[in-house]
Amino acid sequence: MEGTKIKLIDELPKLNNPIFIEGLPGVGNVGRIAVGYLLEELEAKKFAELMSSHFMPFVLIHQSSAVHVLKNELYYWKAKKPNQRDIVFLIGDSQSVDPVGHYEIVETVLDFLEKLGVKSMITTAGLSVEESDDSPLIGVVSEPEILEKYKKYDIDFDAGSKVGTIIGASGLFLGLGRYRDIEGLCLLGQTEAMPEIPDPKTAEVILKVLVEILNVEIDMSELKDKIKEMEKFMKKIQKVQTKAVSQMLREKMGQGEAGQEDLKYIG
Amino acid sequence: MEGTKIKLIDELPKLNNPIFIEGLPGVGNVGRIAVGYLLEELEAKKFAELMSSHFMPFVLIHQSSAVHVLKNELYYWKAKKPNQRDIVFLIGDSQSVDPVGHYEIVETVLDFLEKLGVKSMITTAGLSVEESDDSPLIGVVSEPEILEKYKKYDIDFDAGSKVGTIIGASGLFLGLGRYRDIEGLCLLGQTEAMPEIPDPKTAEVILKVLVEILNVEIDMSELKDKIKEMEKFMKKIQKVQTKAVSQMLREKMGQGEAGQEDLKYIG
Amino acid sequence: MEGTKIKLIDELPKLNNPIFIEGLPGVGNVGRIAVGYLLEELEAKKFAELMSSHFMPFVLIHQSSAVHVLKNELYYWKAKKPNQRDIVFLIGDSQSVDPVGHYEIVETVLDFLEKLGVKSMITTAGLSVEESDDSPLIGVVSEPEILEKYKKYDIDFDAGSKVGTIIGASGLFLGLGRYRDIEGLCLLGQTEAMPEIPDPKTAEVILKVLVEILNVEIDMSELKDKIKEMEKFMKKIQKVQTKAVSQMLREKMGQGEAGQEDLKYIG
Amino acid sequence: MEGTKIKLIDELPKLNNPIFIEGLPGVGNVGRIAVGYLLEELEAKKFAELMSSHFMPFVLIHQSSAVHVLKNELYYWKAKKPNQRDIVFLIGDSQSVDPVGHYEIVETVLDFLEKLGVKSMITTAGLSVEESDDSPLIGVVSEPEILEKYKKYDIDFDAGSKVGTIIGASGLFLGLGRYRDIEGLCLLGQTEAMPEIPDPKTAEVILKVLVEILNVEIDMSELKDKIKEMEKFMKKIQKVQTKAVSQMLREKMGQGEAGQEDLKYIG
Repeated sequence: MEGTKIKLIDELPKLNNPIFIEGLPGVGNVGRIAVGYLLEELEAKKFAELMSSHFMPFVLIHQSSAVHVLKNELYYWKAKKPNQRDIVFLIGDSQSVDPVGHYEIVETVLDFLEKLGVKSMITTAGLSVEESDDSPLIGVVSEPEILEKYKKYDIDFDAGSKVGTIIGASGLFLGLGRYRDIEGLCLLGQTEAMPEIPDPKTAEVILKVLVEILNVEIDMSELKDKIKEMEKFMKKIQKVQTKAVSQMLREKMGQGEAGQEDLKYIG
Repeated sequence: MEGTKIKLIDELPKLNNPIFIEGLPGVGNVGRIAVGYLLEELEAKKFAELMSSHFMPFVLIHQSSAVHVLKNELYYWKAKKPNQRDIVFLIGDSQSVDPVGHYEIVETVLDFLEKLGVKSMITTAGLSVEESDDSPLIGVVSEPEILEKYKKYDIDFDAGSKVGTIIGASGLFLGLGRYRDIEGLCLLGQTEAMPEIPDPKTAEVILKVLVEILNVEIDMSELKDKIKEMEKFMKKIQKVQTKAVSQMLREKMGQGEAGQEDLKYIG
Repeated sequence: MEGTKIKLIDELPKLNNPIFIEGLPGVGNVGRIAVGYLLEELEAKKFAELMSSHFMPFVLIHQSSAVHVLKNELYYWKAKKPNQRDIVFLIGDSQSVDPVGHYEIVETVLDFLEKLGVKSMITTAGLSVEESDDSPLIGVVSEPEILEKYKKYDIDFDAGSKVGTIIGASGLFLGLGRYRDIEGLCLLGQTEAMPEIPDPKTAEVILKVLVEILNVEIDMSELKDKIKEMEKFMKKIQKVQTKAVSQMLREKMGQGEAGQEDLKYIG
Repeated sequence: MEGTKIKLIDELPKLNNPIFIEGLPGVGNVGRIAVGYLLEELEAKKFAELMSSHFMPFVLIHQSSAVHVLKNELYYWKAKKPNQRDIVFLIGDSQSVDPVGHYEIVETVLDFLEKLGVKSMITTAGLSVEESDDSPLIGVVSEPEILEKYKKYDIDFDAGSKVGTIIGASGLFLGLGRYRDIEGLCLLGQTEAMPEIPDPKTAEVILKVLVEILNVEIDMSELKDKIKEMEKFMKKIQKVQTKAVSQMLREKMGQGEAGQEDLKYIG
């Protein structure tokens, strides 16, 4: 494998006009935390894993002493009520470590989503700000026409005057999805946190709007504890990843080495 | 998509011996400004977009809150008079961010141009000089025989003694076009501007020669205003791009992040 | 060849449920030394070589003035007694110099191992620690179920609380092998050595456990001398490699240059 | 074109057991100068050009104001006397700018050489030394058996004790040629010059041995002048290339820019 591949670990689900929700690691990990909590609470079912040579070449060691390579995961959830929709979720350990890989991974997922019949999506990301105002989430869309659908939610759609770009998967999903007639919304949670510090408060803001849009009910009471666990895990991955990158740059020899980290995996 | 692809957004036009005009971003953005203004004034029609995993992995947010991925755009214009020629234009947000990508993008465009019957081209670029003399544009060509055709214009063809190389798409189009029997001229506008500062004066010099060669008439009166708008936009892209690159190099983790930029899109 | 290929230099051996043992260069070169000594003592037979454009583009000069490109080597050994297993060994000069290459090389080897009927593996690596305690080797596994098989050996399986990640081939073989139903054990030898200093003492600890697991008998008496030879060789490769990388980064022009190194090849 | 391709500009010559002589740019440009002079004096015929996306993305501007992309060139020469051999030459503007490209370019040339029936080769390179002793050229070979053939020439075959590695094409041709049963000799000319300073004296030493091995007679009287010309040209390419690389690293935006260099092309 040079490249990116999605491996089914269960049968391809038959879904009815599903909506795609993305929550990969990023600034403050706000999307990762929000979407991770949501799919756990909904008891969504994992059915596929994505591996890529554009992730860092290392494995994470679980508490059980077993390992897994860095990966993204796809889950689905079937609507329980008439006013709900089937959902496909994407979460994961990492985004691409090189610019080219972002395009490849997003296109690979989009190919896969088309097979599942996805025609709309919501992506999530953090927006670094120096001082967060009290304004709600900032939203951007794949096409101006979509704004109408989301105007009733507590989302600030004046992004064009505040934000210039979205770097990474959250933006590319929208920008490349357009060419496949998949309409998209990106929820940007303002965070004062340093990029590598998880920001659970902003994650919660995203989660609340997601729940409202998706018309699902989840128990929020375990959020704080879960977030603490996730924070710990994601922080560790980033620490290890940063260390690994700097080490690889330093040595440029790709030697095997184990990092001594007190890492507990919560998966 | 890993790689580069051109997506038709309209039918492939039937053109009569068209000439290709390239104006991608570069030093002082002189080519981008000149060609962008020219095609707007001619009301050329956009018929294809080029996307590449060799562009930075981010989307630009329009004033409308809608996004687009970094792209190049192809326009065509049909001759109105007997002494004019059909034209294919290439402008865009970015050139490749890595050396390999330049070759791939230029070859992809050349493949496409061959289908359109292109046998000649004019590319445009800025030439950083410490002090601009009063000399006109500097011209280089794909083959010495072509000089004759352009001798009557105000172009200095003594480049061999002044300029050693042309980096990026403007040069590669000529150098690689030769192998496809496409003859080419590159117009180098001397600019004292820092690479990242748009230089409208030099853009105007290029524009005037282009208009003369192409035998078209355009209204120059809106040039100043349009240039100001474009300047603002291109400056923003570069600012965002520079920030994005430095950030990606710093983090090397490809995390999604939105840049807070007061970016207005003029497209 | 852009990419990675395995070239048979002898017929593909027919093996009976073989186990795969990996010992590529890494921290302290402990795996490379242990596995290299083991296969020499067992008089394992080389049957294939792996080349990759993800190794540095240079050749090593032998004492005979002949050269070879950086490569990995595959050996096999057939069981002599009922309580032994057929073995496939992988050793080599280098690991990938870029992240993407690690995935490609490991997947190329795994494809090859599947053809040989490999269903289990042991990889080896060094673990940088500030102060080595008296604890034995640290072990991690591809699946929790495998722990049971190796509990009787002097291996510490409490890695999850001590080690967070394994970078490079040793970890990826386990992590990617899982998707092919190949079960794996990675032996991590704790070393206080700087990454680039061979650590024969830790190599010996790995060797002893390998011998016990594989149920083979080897003469340990030449270990010290052999390790000294290997040390010298591996140290030279790393020195040259580090010099080459820094030079290539400096010049970025890929010019041919010979490094003046007093390198003796022991192969 | 992403990748490397060889374009025939004349019919594929029918050659009788030809020997391949490589002289690409490198330390002191000694190989480039020696082989370039040799093929000019022999009036060898150019029949193919090699382009690669692993060369820097720029064009060189000739004195005529025409351009060419960085390329390598293949020439052939047919034996005039019974004790001579047909020859295929490779010279060029550049080697790969990235490690992966070296493998791709060398393999592409080797594929091509096999079609021409090449079974032996001589590559040339400079060897940076702090103080050049009076010893002759240093030689390394693809297989120990080949030493015998070249023992009668003034070549020092004790490389194994002096030189550890050969970086770039000169070494890879030997190392990868071995797998195609092409036997090879690499002539390393010791040079005290900085890598980027052409060293005509050492080039002359290589040239003299080449002439002797190939059993050809050439007029050496123009050597000094020709070398001066070549020096100037190659120095310019390197200067431009170094500037281009540093600029691209600085901007990482691949913007077109022309370098103001007083470059004359001697081709």
